[in-house]
Amino acid sequence: MYGHMLANARTMPPSFPQFWARGEGACAWDVDDNRYVDFLCAFGPMLLGHRNPLVDEAAARQAALGDTLSGPSPRMVELAELLTSTIPHADWAMFAKNGTDATSTAVRIARVATGRTKLLKAAVAYHGANDWFTPRSAGVTPQDRANIVEFAYNDVASLEAAAAAHDGDVAAIIVAPFRHDSFVAQEPVDPAFARAVRALATRIGAVLILDEVRSGFRLDVRGAWEGLGVRPDMTAFSKALANGYAISALVGADALRESASEVYVTGSFWYSAVPMAAAIATVRHAVEVDAPALIREPGERFKAGLEAQGERHGLPVSLTGPVQMPLLVFADDPERTTAFAFTDAAVRRGVLLHPWHNMFLSTAHTVEVVDEVLALTDEAFAETATALRAAS
Amino acid sequence: MYGHMLANARTMPPSFPQFWARGEGACAWDVDDNRYVDFLCAFGPMLLGHRNPLVDEAAARQAALGDTLSGPSPRMVELAELLTSTIPHADWAMFAKNGTDATSTAVRIARVATGRTKLLKAAVAYHGANDWFTPRSAGVTPQDRANIVEFAYNDVASLEAAAAAHDGDVAAIIVAPFRHDSFVAQEPVDPAFARAVRALATRIGAVLILDEVRSGFRLDVRGAWEGLGVRPDMTAFSKALANGYAISALVGADALRESASEVYVTGSFWYSAVPMAAAIATVRHAVEVDAPALIREPGERFKAGLEAQGERHGLPVSLTGPVQMPLLVFADDPERTTAFAFTDAAVRRGVLLHPWHNMFLSTAHTVEVVDEVLALTDEAFAETATALRAAS
Repeated sequence: MYGHMLANARTMPPSFPQFWARGEGACAWDVDDNRYVDFLCAFGPMLLGHRNPLVDEAAARQAALGDTLSGPSPRMVELAELLTSTIPHADWAMFAKNGTDATSTAVRIARVATGRTKLLKAAVAYHGANDWFTPRSAGVTPQDRANIVEFAYNDVASLEAAAAAHDGDVAAIIVAPFRHDSFVAQEPVDPAFARAVRALATRIGAVLILDEVRSGFRLDVRGAWEGLGVRPDMTAFSKALANGYAISALVGADALRESASEVYVTGSFWYSAVPMAAAIATVRHAVEVDAPALIREPGERFKAGLEAQGERHGLPVSLTGPVQMPLLVFADDPERTTAFAFTDAAVRRGVLLHPWHNMFLSTAHTVEVVDEVLALTDEAFAETATALRAAS
Repeated sequence: MYGHMLANARTMPPSFPQFWARGEGACAWDVDDNRYVDFLCAFGPMLLGHRNPLVDEAAARQAALGDTLSGPSPRMVELAELLTSTIPHADWAMFAKNGTDATSTAVRIARVATGRTKLLKAAVAYHGANDWFTPRSAGVTPQDRANIVEFAYNDVASLEAAAAAHDGDVAAIIVAPFRHDSFVAQEPVDPAFARAVRALATRIGAVLILDEVRSGFRLDVRGAWEGLGVRPDMTAFSKALANGYAISALVGADALRESASEVYVTGSFWYSAVPMAAAIATVRHAVEVDAPALIREPGERFKAGLEAQGERHGLPVSLTGPVQMPLLVFADDPERTTAFAFTDAAVRRGVLLHPWHNMFLSTAHTVEVVDEVLALTDEAFAETATALRAAS
C-alpha cells in the first residue's frame, strides 16, 4: 500500500485520476488528457510549479555532464553551503533520497550524540515510513516500536510527562513545525509549546529534530520556527527541496557534526548530481522570491474564497493550517461524506483537491489561477449541496 | 559516514579522486579534469556506461512531459510489465528509491504473509543500511537487531541450525546470489546451498528473498539463480535498474501479492516517471543485448590480464567473484598494503580500481577498453613491486 494512494472506492473519490500524463506550472493532465489545476503538487515537491524552467535547465546542464558518478560532484558542496547559509541553525548538511532517510538518520545521530535510546514523538504524527514511524503496523514487530514514546502535540504537560517517564534515556524529540495529521484539522504550533520543546530538550540533554519534510521552503526558507526564535538541533527536508527531483537533506548544528560522521548511512543514488543541481536552483529561487510569502496571498484568497462559498451553499468548510498547505475540513462531516462529494465534483471540473490530506500550493498558483479555480469550485459546491439534499 | 566513502587516509588510497566532474561511457573525469577508466561504475548503477544515449533520451522524453506528478504515470505499469515478463518468478512489482527500501519492504511483506518475526541472513552480508541491516552499530538499539538471526553463507548446516533455533517463527530468509562481502574474496554460491535455501524456506513456510540490489542485470537478466533452477519468492533490485537514475524495485510471486498490498510504504518520489522511463530503456536494452553475456568476455580478459600481470611482477592477485563485478584480493596481504599501493598506482595512471570493495564493469567496458587498461595496470604493478621491495 503506497502512502500516496491510488484511487479506489475506499480511499479516494471516484473521479480522482489514477494515472498522470504530464504537468506544467500549476496544472497537470491525466492520461485521458483532462486538465486539472493541481492542488496536490505531487504531495509537496512542486514548490515552483511543474517543470519549472529554471530548475529543469539547471538539472539538464548537470545531466549533460553526469548524474550518478563514483562519488559526489561539486554540486554537493555548493548545495551544503547554500543550505547552511540559508538556514541559521544549520552548520552542516548531508543528503539522501527519501524524507524517511533524513528523519531516521537524525534519530540515529541523536542516539550516538547522547548515548541514549528513546525517541519522543507526537501521537499520530507522521515522520516517515520506516518501522519506527510507519502509521500502519502490518509487518512491523513490537521491537521496532520499543523505543518510541508519544506525547500530545501542543501539550506541554504531556511532553514533560513523556520525558519524565524515561528520565535519562531520551535521545531525541522529533516534532513537525505544525500539526499536520491526515483526516483532522491542521493546527498551528502554540509558540509556547515550541519554546517548551526547545527548553526541555536543552534541559535534559536531548536532541531536538524538526521534521520539515512536508513544510520545508513553504513556510519560511530559514526554517519554519525561525520566526518564533526557536532553533532545532537538526532539521529534515525533502519534498520541495529540488522541485520534484529525488533528494532529501538533513542539516544540523556543529555540536552534532562528529556524531553525524559516525553513523553509517548509504544509498546507491545519494551522490547523484542532477537532483543536487535542481535543489540549488530551487532553493536559490525560493529565497530570491521568498516563495512562502509569494504563495501567501493566493493561498489566503483560496482559503477565503472556498470558505465563503461553503458558507453560501450551506456546506461550511474550513481550510485549516498554513494557507500554503491547507487541509479541508467540513463541518459535521465525521464520515467525510461531504468532503468526498465536494472534492469529487471539483475534480470533475478540473480542480484537483484532496478530501483528507493537506494540499499544497506552489508559486505557479497565482491569484489569477485561484480566481479561475474559485469559479469552478462554486459550481462544485452547488452540485454537492443539491446532491446531499436529495440524498437526505 | 557514507557507505560509498569519500577518500581519506584510513579508507582509500591517497590518489583516489574525491569529487567528480563528468562521465561518458566507460570513463569519468574528476574535478581536475583527470580522465579515468571507471571500474566502479558509481558502485554499480552504470550498467550501460555513463550517460548512455538510449537511456538518457528515454529519460529526456519523459522529463518533457513530467517527472514527479500527483500520482504514477503509465511508465509505472509498463515497467512492472517489463519486469514481470523478464523475470520468471515475478508476478508483481513495486518501486521505491533505495535498495534498502526494497529489501526492508520485502521483510515486512514476509512478516505479514507468515505472521512471524525472525529474519535469517548470512553473517556479515550487507542487505541495506537501515537499523536491522547497517554494518555499523552507531546509533542502533539492541531492539533494532532483535529479530535478525545469522547463518554462514554456503553452509547448509548453519542455515538449518539458525532455522531450527527459531522453529515456527522464521518469516524470511534473505540472501545474496553470491557472497560479496567487502574486504574478503567473493565466493560463488554453491548450487547445493541455493537449492537447500529454497527447500528449507518451502519446508518451514518462510519467504525466500533474493537480494539482487548489487548484482541485478549483471549476472542474468532473468534473475541470478534462474540458471540454477532456483526461484526466490521476492527479489530486490536497484543500482543498475535504470543505469544511474534513482529507483529500486521489489518483485514477487503471486502468493505474496495480497501481503504486499497490506504493507504501508511511501516516499515523496516513488512515483517519479523519469527514472521509470530510464529503467524501461535500460532493462529492454540489457535484455536485447544480453548485458551479462556481453560483459563476460571483457570481464574475463580483465581478470586474466590482471592475474597474469600480478604473477609476472611477483604480486599474485585474484579477481574473485563474477567477472562482471570482480573484487581484487592480493596474496599475503592481510593489511591490504599491496592492494592500496597497487590501486593507488593504477588510479594515478587513470584506472579507477577499488582496494577492498567489488568493482563493476559495464557494457561500455569493451575488450579494447580492457586492453588499454591492461597496459596501464602493467606499469602500476611494476611501480608497486619496486616500491614494496624498497620498503621491505
